[in-house]
Amino acid sequence: MTDAQARLDAKTKPRGSLGRLEELAVRIASITGDASGAPLQAAIVVAAGDHGVTAEGVSAYPSEVTRQMVANFEGGGAAVSVLARQAGATVHVVDAGVGNPTGNIATGPALERAEADELVERGRRFAHELDAGIVVPGEMGIGNSTIASALAAALLPREPEDVCGRGTGLDAEGVARKVDVVRRALAANPARDDARDVLAALGGRELAFLVGLVLGAAESNKVVLLDGFISSTAALVAARIEPAAVESMVAAHRSPEPGHSLVLAELGLVPLLDLGLRLGEGSGAALALPLLASSLAILREMATFESAGVTDAGR
Amino acid sequence: MTDAQARLDAKTKPRGSLGRLEELAVRIASITGDASGAPLQAAIVVAAGDHGVTAEGVSAYPSEVTRQMVANFEGGGAAVSVLARQAGATVHVVDAGVGNPTGNIATGPALERAEADELVERGRRFAHELDAGIVVPGEMGIGNSTIASALAAALLPREPEDVCGRGTGLDAEGVARKVDVVRRALAANPARDDARDVLAALGGRELAFLVGLVLGAAESNKVVLLDGFISSTAALVAARIEPAAVESMVAAHRSPEPGHSLVLAELGLVPLLDLGLRLGEGSGAALALPLLASSLAILREMATFESAGVTDAGR
Repeated sequence: MTDAQARLDAKTKPRGSLGRLEELAVRIASITGDASGAPLQAAIVVAAGDHGVTAEGVSAYPSEVTRQMVANFEGGGAAVSVLARQAGATVHVVDAGVGNPTGNIATGPALERAEADELVERGRRFAHELDAGIVVPGEMGIGNSTIASALAAALLPREPEDVCGRGTGLDAEGVARKVDVVRRALAANPARDDARDVLAALGGRELAFLVGLVLGAAESNKVVLLDGFISSTAALVAARIEPAAVESMVAAHRSPEPGHSLVLAELGLVPLLDLGLRLGEGSGAALALPLLASSLAILREMATFESAGVTDAGR
Repeated sequence: MTDAQARLDAKTKPRGSLGRLEELAVRIASITGDASGAPLQAAIVVAAGDHGVTAEGVSAYPSEVTRQMVANFEGGGAAVSVLARQAGATVHVVDAGVGNPTGNIATGPALERAEADELVERGRRFAHELDAGIVVPGEMGIGNSTIASALAAALLPREPEDVCGRGTGLDAEGVARKVDVVRRALAANPARDDARDVLAALGGRELAFLVGLVLGAAESNKVVLLDGFISSTAALVAARIEPAAVESMVAAHRSPEPGHSLVLAELGLVPLLDLGLRLGEGSGAALALPLLASSLAILREMATFESAGVTDAGR
């Protein structure tokens, strides 16, 4: 970090005048241990799964859309596919339980603890094996903003009405139904002491995979670039399992989901973008990738006062 | 605009879920008249000039830095050079009066009206001849945040203390000196009725060139992507000359200069980024270029519900 800051301070610009771009360069250097500003490849990992809670009518879309969208990711036509191409990122689609819905959290646990642990471990290994310096946890799963709301309400903890929002398309009545479902889910799944127990009870398969992905990325000194509410909630679970994982996280954007701001505040992260994005998939993180690349390019390519022969006011 | 919105609504995402990225795509389509999302080349035009007002001690840097930085732009080592390469934008450095300082606005007019008009016209022609769909007005000129503060104070109108900030490196005492200089400049140059008169009296050569650049870009259906306080103040002068020019503007970022927020509000623009950038040059606009490119890519490349066989909830 000190190396990166010293390098930035020698560049031909007033000290600190690139604001958060400089903070970002320093944070990335502290995560990777490299202050040279070498480019980092980004990998967007879109984990997909289905959720028994859709039986409660908590989404504007039918469950079958999860599988259809997986095909769309693979065909390159989804938003995250387009935005990843723009940013030069790779996209990895992981089937974590498509067509195999979890238990309905409104009435009981989503998963057995053993299966949740196995998915976390699968995500961890996936992250370790990724040939990338930046990992984006992305997701697709009709109903998973309800799952993330339940997890966030349990872990923060907060009342269901504080964390529930429109997701990708609910009206006010839909949000009220979602609040009720989360309240019933918290009552049906009372365990709170162990983050892995909470994840199994209230989570989903793609969420569990992403928790592991975040843990594995942090363990292997990769930058974890968080997308919206769902991926950030997976990161919160990861942080409860291993608090040091937070040091590897960067928040890409602030979603209008009320739970997202609460989760980011709990993680101590201030997002780079605030553009009203509420799509998920990893799309908001893909949009922020050029900021990470630019922060590294500043570190790597800018001239110094000395090399460019520019008078330094020394401030 | 209607075409662009209809195309966006057919894409495989909930309506409006890409938030301001969708608004951006629609705005660009309305400016260029093309709803296909075809890629646009960006050109960053860095106009440079020197200012007699530096005799008042309003900058942390000596005037000679203007010329040194022009060499740095041409050598590719400045922040805007690096960020332009990242974004695939061209950089055009325009000497609008380097080493030829304007009159000191604290005691009299900066320029004769005829010379200011000539510089505006030169900027206009430059914009018309640019082979680019996006034009970024960038600038370099030691002392020019004082010039922009005086112009903004005169045109909004606001008190000098409302618009003056740290620029690229003043301390509190320096800001107080700047406020006093702007107050004396307004007293020494009382004309307010004609924006071109105000520009001549309180402006600078690079500012006048940029006013013309904005007017010419708007006339030729190019997107004008505004950087920070100085380029946005040039855009405000342009809007006072030709109000329709505002329709071609997009604000890239919000600078911490207090005058910038006031000028953006007057133009009715909400910036895309808020990253504490206070460097100028066009650097903040360069950082926002990938967002423009991504908004067009969404319009151009995303699959539709129909083409991808995804069930549309119709919201």
